Amino acid sequence: MPDDALQRETGQGSVGGSGTAAMPFDIAKLDRLMEEAGLDALLVTSKHNVQYLLGGHRAQFFSFMDAMGISRYLPVLVYPKGAPEKTIYIGHRLERYQLEVGRFWVPEMRAASSGSVDAMERAVEAVRKLGLAHGRIGVERPFLPMDAAEALRAGLPEAGIGEALVVLERLRAIKSAREITLLREASERIIASMLAVMARHGAGSTKREIAEDLKCEEASRGLDFEYCLITAGTSLNRAPAEERWEKGQPLSLDSGGNYRGYIGDLTRMAVLGEPDAELEELLGKVEEVQQKAFRTIAPGRPGGDIFAESERAMAGLAEHDCMHFMAHGMGMISHEAPRLPTGGQMTYPAVDAKRPLEPGMVLSVETTMAHPKRGFIKLEDTVAVTAAGWEILGEGARGWNRGGTAAG
Amino acid sequence: MPDDALQRETGQGSVGGSGTAAMPFDIAKLDRLMEEAGLDALLVTSKHNVQYLLGGHRAQFFSFMDAMGISRYLPVLVYPKGAPEKTIYIGHRLERYQLEVGRFWVPEMRAASSGSVDAMERAVEAVRKLGLAHGRIGVERPFLPMDAAEALRAGLPEAGIGEALVVLERLRAIKSAREITLLREASERIIASMLAVMARHGAGSTKREIAEDLKCEEASRGLDFEYCLITAGTSLNRAPAEERWEKGQPLSLDSGGNYRGYIGDLTRMAVLGEPDAELEELLGKVEEVQQKAFRTIAPGRPGGDIFAESERAMAGLAEHDCMHFMAHGMGMISHEAPRLPTGGQMTYPAVDAKRPLEPGMVLSVETTMAHPKRGFIKLEDTVAVTAAGWEILGEGARGWNRGGTAAG
Repeated sequence: MPDDALQRETGQGSVGGSGTAAMPFDIAKLDRLMEEAGLDALLVTSKHNVQYLLGGHRAQFFSFMDAMGISRYLPVLVYPKGAPEKTIYIGHRLERYQLEVGRFWVPEMRAASSGSVDAMERAVEAVRKLGLAHGRIGVERPFLPMDAAEALRAGLPEAGIGEALVVLERLRAIKSAREITLLREASERIIASMLAVMARHGAGSTKREIAEDLKCEEASRGLDFEYCLITAGTSLNRAPAEERWEKGQPLSLDSGGNYRGYIGDLTRMAVLGEPDAELEELLGKVEEVQQKAFRTIAPGRPGGDIFAESERAMAGLAEHDCMHFMAHGMGMISHEAPRLPTGGQMTYPAVDAKRPLEPGMVLSVETTMAHPKRGFIKLEDTVAVTAAGWEILGEGARGWNRGGTAAG
Repeated sequence: MPDDALQRETGQGSVGGSGTAAMPFDIAKLDRLMEEAGLDALLVTSKHNVQYLLGGHRAQFFSFMDAMGISRYLPVLVYPKGAPEKTIYIGHRLERYQLEVGRFWVPEMRAASSGSVDAMERAVEAVRKLGLAHGRIGVERPFLPMDAAEALRAGLPEAGIGEALVVLERLRAIKSAREITLLREASERIIASMLAVMARHGAGSTKREIAEDLKCEEASRGLDFEYCLITAGTSLNRAPAEERWEKGQPLSLDSGGNYRGYIGDLTRMAVLGEPDAELEELLGKVEEVQQKAFRTIAPGRPGGDIFAESERAMAGLAEHDCMHFMAHGMGMISHEAPRLPTGGQMTYPAVDAKRPLEPGMVLSVETTMAHPKRGFIKLEDTVAVTAAGWEILGEGARGWNRGGTAAG
């Protein structure tokens, strides 16, 4: 536990915030989206949206955990529409070291709060000072805890409460060149990690051992490991558990890792020994669906077209009944705009299915074959929409990678 | 992103939950605490309390992130007082692989939800079926999102809403032998990680490089890295940044890492080359305060006694004005019961200061010297209260560790 008592006297004030960093997002677009949503100010409280708006800042002490004492970490960014120069960030007291050394576009960066309620009370005070106590305040309802929501209502009884989450999702939908670079980097590091781990493990390694090793490998490549879904052999269960990888058997690795706030999320296959003809054929079919799906991705073309094409590609296959295709926007979180159909798996409506794709949008494209006899065979890729069409972020290693080639 | 559409037909039902695992906590104590708090049922929604009550289960897909689509992960454990056999866990659809292979004491484990609102709607339905629609329901207000809280109020308009957080904190206050083992393991792995990293780095390594290396090292030792506060040289700023470690200079590493849900949180010191006499003396003083503080830890003795003793130990020192002592309960989260005074740093009241310590309680004990000329010098330890007195979890490496001894 860090000890910030010695710096207590400065803990309440503004630290850092030299205001010299460039704004990392399109402020005119944000103001326009807020205007359309009828919002006068945003109180942003999700880690990912705070990170986005602050150009990458994430409180390291609370990156993995939120809970502390009988409260929790709650960052609050107060953004008044059309007045970025009055933006205020209310961070936790333990963020002060990072705020001191960082450069931020937000003029007032405070390392002030100790929990969720006092953070919101400070935000309420800021909204009052901005003259917006009677305004309409956008909040992220899934990321605003009940106790802080009550503090907001008690402190601003005459304010209207609106929804900020979709405004921020729309703002994030088009990735900047910097963001595409981070997503490419995340994807390439995931693939490199998978190849290293596939090579290191041979017959008898358990799924748990392989998944643990992938976690280390991703960490050693600068990623925050998120998860590893893994199958070995013919079982379709994807939890890291005690099943062993054996000779001739396939292995699927589906892993997410976070690089500076951006997710790399790919699936690659390996086999121990040489793949037999059937395995080659099955992965070839999955790859063909992926490639046909990629070719539907183009600026101006509706995002939903990818489903019709993949369905056509799968329709004639003998394995059709055990195949499934999915595509969804991704970036800072694992499902985001463009929001496409997900076959009832997600609770959000597919509002972007008929809208044209735009350059800078990023899709996760996944074709799964849950083969009853040969096991789980899948490819998953991250694809950016470009001015000319599409670009795979993190290409390579798409066939049967050989396991155990670097095993001791 | 995992794809669970192929298993959609089973996604709503109960999976796993063979009911064969032993209950990992004191159920009679939980019922008694609920009785005292006037609660008929708990809706537990924080990751750490869900993990505690389920004996270690944590949804891997949402271990690092919560957000997905325009909603978020929200686990809900429904516990009706006095009827553990009717307990229901509502997990996310993506937890199904883990639930299938795990063993749990909870009879009904569902991999059912897609977001926060539908998770709560399922929990509401469960409460109704339990006949508790008019009962008093305990919730964790900082860990219950506003949208789910609204779904709860809409679905159970006649139920009373009470506070579950303190009930669960009290339940967790006394650690079992298994939990002490996990905390010891976490602490020892943190120390081993620090020693490896201190040895690998020499003159010119930046704080950022060292902190990144510690992150990898902790991952390679099976820990979920949480954070690394770090100083090098005479600066008191503890952010991983571009300052370099140079010959003759001290380095402090204060890092938290999570081992199967339990936090290791220690601070150790290193120096590049041999420490001069003043550095030896200063760390000696910090160590003396720690040792005197440890000796106040005993079952039956008030937890707050540690502050009087450490204050006495620091009072006569020339460095008194730049020293600070803190002690607080820890375990699954970085501050928990016993709740002791924190000098205004935390928002919680020090309710345990005058209460007797009990065997199984665990304290984090930290003495800091923010020396204006020599830099940041600190030791932090994790100490368990035992039947006989106290036991340090993660002993060793308390003096000036030498940097660069394994540098290439």
